[in-house]
Order: sequence, then C-alpha cells, then structure tokens
Amino acid sequence: VEGFGFTSEVTVRFAETDAQGVAHHSVYLVWFEQTRVEYLARFDGGYPALQAEGIEALTLETYVRHLLPARFPDRLRISCRCRDLRGARFRYEYAVERGDELLAEGWTTHACVNAQTFQPTRVPSWLATSIATAEGPEPSASSS
Amino acid sequence: VEGFGFTSEVTVRFAETDAQGVAHHSVYLVWFEQTRVEYLARFDGGYPALQAEGIEALTLETYVRHLLPARFPDRLRISCRCRDLRGARFRYEYAVERGDELLAEGWTTHACVNAQTFQPTRVPSWLATSIATAEGPEPSASSS
Amino acid sequence: VEGFGFTSEVTVRFAETDAQGVAHHSVYLVWFEQTRVEYLARFDGGYPALQAEGIEALTLETYVRHLLPARFPDRLRISCRCRDLRGARFRYEYAVERGDELLAEGWTTHACVNAQTFQPTRVPSWLATSIATAEGPEPSASSS
Amino acid sequence: VEGFGFTSEVTVRFAETDAQGVAHHSVYLVWFEQTRVEYLARFDGGYPALQAEGIEALTLETYVRHLLPARFPDRLRISCRCRDLRGARFRYEYAVERGDELLAEGWTTHACVNAQTFQPTRVPSWLATSIATAEGPEPSASSS
Repeated sequence: VEGFGFTSEVTVRFAETDAQGVAHHSVYLVWFEQTRVEYLARFDGGYPALQAEGIEALTLETYVRHLLPARFPDRLRISCRCRDLRGARFRYEYAVERGDELLAEGWTTHACVNAQTFQPTRVPSWLATSIATAEGPEPSASSS
Repeated sequence: VEGFGFTSEVTVRFAETDAQGVAHHSVYLVWFEQTRVEYLARFDGGYPALQAEGIEALTLETYVRHLLPARFPDRLRISCRCRDLRGARFRYEYAVERGDELLAEGWTTHACVNAQTFQPTRVPSWLATSIATAEGPEPSASSS
Repeated sequence: VEGFGFTSEVTVRFAETDAQGVAHHSVYLVWFEQTRVEYLARFDGGYPALQAEGIEALTLETYVRHLLPARFPDRLRISCRCRDLRGARFRYEYAVERGDELLAEGWTTHACVNAQTFQPTRVPSWLATSIATAEGPEPSASSS
Repeated sequence: VEGFGFTSEVTVRFAETDAQGVAHHSVYLVWFEQTRVEYLARFDGGYPALQAEGIEALTLETYVRHLLPARFPDRLRISCRCRDLRGARFRYEYAVERGDELLAEGWTTHACVNAQTFQPTRVPSWLATSIATAEGPEPSASSS
C-alpha cells in the first residue's frame, strides 16, 4: 500500500489465534497500538516521554476492516501514519499486509489527556512538530 | 439507551485493565462477541448450532466509540441488536452502559461462511427467521 | 472435588480459544484471578476495599495442571480456597470442572504490598479474620 | 542466567499491562509460548512442520515464579531450554530478564498428540534429534 511512511512487523502468536484457526479480530487493535508505540519511539523518547510529562493518550474510536485472515505464525507488516493532529486530538491510519496481500485496514482516533484528571490537553509541541516533519504536508484535494 | 431488545452483563476483569487503570479498548470487541453469543443462544442452539451446520460467522468490520472509561470491577450492561440481515451478511449494534452512563457504542459486520472453504453462505433460514422475529420490523424513515 | 468452600462460574469465550480449538492455557490464570475477586467480594468490600487502603495483592507464583481441554462455549465451575495466610502472604488453590469432569487444577501464591512502594505489608486484619472464618480450621495432619 | 542455549526477545506491550502498572502475570505464559515457537523454528520447519504431520503439542503444566515486575515498554530477554524429552513428553524451562535483573522464571510440560484424536504420540524423531543436538547431554548428577 502507498502513502505510509512507517512500517512495523509483527508475528502472529499462537495465543492470538482462535478456534476458527485465524488471528482473533480483537488482536488487530493490540497490533495497531504496538505500531503506534513504535511509530512514536522515533521521536524524543516517544510514548514514555509523553507519560513523563503527565500525559496519556486515550483511544476515542477504533475501526478495522478485515479482508483476509491472518494465521499462526504469519509474519505481518503493519504500516501506519498519523493524520489530523489538531489541539489534543489526532488520528492514525493502518494497513496490515502479508507479502503483497492486504489483510486488513483501519483507523483510530485519540486525544491527549492529563494523566491525573483525564482532561484534554494539547499534544506537546515537540511531538506535534516531530509528527508534522515525519508525515510531511497532507495531500491536498485541490492540487493540480 | 433505547431500541435494543437484548442486554447482557459483563464484569470488568482485572486482567482486562491496562496501566491507565481502565479497561483496554481492545477488550470491548471481546465483550461485543460475548454479547453476540448470548444473543444467539436464545435461538435453537445458537452459535454452536451454526457451527454444527459447518458454518462460521466471520467478523468483517468493527467500530467502537469510547465516551467514558470502564474500570475494575465495574458491572457493565451491554445491549445489542441485529440489523441488515441480507444473504450471508448481517450487522450488530451495541451500547455499553454503567448505571445510566453510556460508556461506549459500536457496531460490527459479519458474514456467514462455509467453515471449510471460508466461502460466503446464506445465514440459515431458521436463524434469519428467529432474528427477524426477535428484532421486529426495522424502523422505517418514511413511516407517517 | 471436595474441600472447596467457594465456587464461581465462567463461560469459555470464543476469544479465549486458540487454533487447537480449546481454551488457551494462559486463560486459566485469568479465570483464577476472576474467581479470587469473587471470593474476596463476599468480605467487607473485597479487593476494591484492599485497594482503597492503598494495598495491592501481587501474584508471586502460578501453577496450573491441565487434564482435559475446555471448549467454547463450555460452562465451567471454578472452585477456590485460601490457604496459608501468614503475614503478607497467602495461597489459593483451584479446581476447574465441567459437569463431573475435572479439567484442571492449580494454585497461586500472593503477597500484599503497599501500592506506592510495592513493599510487603500484612494482610489487613479484617480480611485475615474474614478468610479464617470462611475457610475454618485447616486440616491437621496430626488430628486423631 | 546460565545454562540456556536459546534466547528470544520480547517488548512489553501496553495492552499487556494491568491497573497495577505492570505486565499481567498471565502474559508470561504467552511469552513462554512465543519463545518455544522461536526455539523450534530453528529446526526443520519448527511448529508448523509438527502441525503438517498432524501433531499438536499440548500444554500439560505451567509454573511461573515472579521476582520483579515488568513494565511497558520494557525490552525483555527470555531464555529457554528443552529438557526431559521422553516419548510423547517434554519440558521447557525459562528465565525472563531485563538487563541483568531476573524478573521471573518458570517451566512448562507438554505432550505431543495426534491433532485429530488428541491421543499421545511420540515426538517425531527429526525433532527429538534436533533438540538433543541443540541441548547437548543433560548435566549428570553423578559426574566426577
């Protein structure tokens, strides 16, 4: 798939399969999260650095579309990109591939909150800048 | 919430919490599945009866929106209804409540498949009829 | 099985099965924990009351022996008893049954710790007394 | 730790933590399994090759001793060795380390079974030979 600047790898664990013989659909959200953590780990300390500032990132929405099943012990490639970072909120988009097959795609939305009060707080500028640099300008629908 | 004909209950397990002190967002998909199983268990043998016919129900899409966190050991009420049953496909909608607070809502889409070939197969008529009876006529936008 | 004063029930979730078609062996530890929570819930507020005192119970050791597999959607009976409560430490023993079949048995050991420092702290007397009352005198090897 | 010929690495996932802020104790069994899979993957196709012969490896017993908690996003080293391979049965031993700290240790016992009948079947000779070669002679108590 195109348009993703970051890719991680995950191997389907036996414990992640179910009695249909495939990776259980809830596990994709765990893989997405693991990919977000690795995505952020490239920037100034990543998620632990956020936590050290007293900030947690909540998950507001999750969406996954399954096209083909993943099986034990498939080696998967999970691509992600960060979009729509505004104030406290941001959005990730994902693609899950095995070789050249697209198994699933999805997106999640998040908000940074104060870890004590769970009140929304802006994404720290060091992180917003890092992500903007990594992702580059968003595609414009009016480009000619 | 209104418009749900079936409600199940689940208690947040300690193992389902994460280091934010709340139920991990991936667990809601497990609770939704458990609610579907209980929803179907009212009808002629339910999910095991489907499996006995050589049919599995795949999960095609999942969507969850989180409004408030759930904590250990909250007692939650999960409502669900089945919609849009056509051919091999159907859709469930969910609401997760604690007391009178709406914690999350979501929907999932599914397809019945042959358990051997994973090819789509119609929802068996005994199940389609049972669900139609349980859910009643779908709300019509043009009713006067 | 005999000698257990407390029994809980759990239904095998589809998400808890693996590609062998049985409940994954790691899930038994989650069921044991859930049973401990319900065991304690009978006493003065249970585990949340412990947490309200700034105490957490750590798991030090776990042991499970599997005799027969559990399958979706088996209804299981999990019995547990608390033993060897001394100072900060205590031990639980478990049996997992389906009808009159013993599927698994196990034990876990625990220590109460200060939730901030993770240093050992005595089991609160209200809880020690409640457990002692519930379990009665331990069988004595020298009884005649 | 000494005496382990195979070491794998795992990063604690956020979803694997619990409200105590540490990796949940049930997750160690998933890490052990993942380590066994990687241990076997060195030999002639590993676990998938076993499955292709119609053989599954059941888990009979699990034991874990926890010394220190693991936290997100710790990078852990999991060592394992295979012992006591006789007929259908074998045993794995594990150590979980973070840097030079021993966080946990444990062991599991297993039996090969026919995937259809779940009846015990000898560990295939190609695998027994590979393991014996990898592990070398077991330490003898009577060596002088």
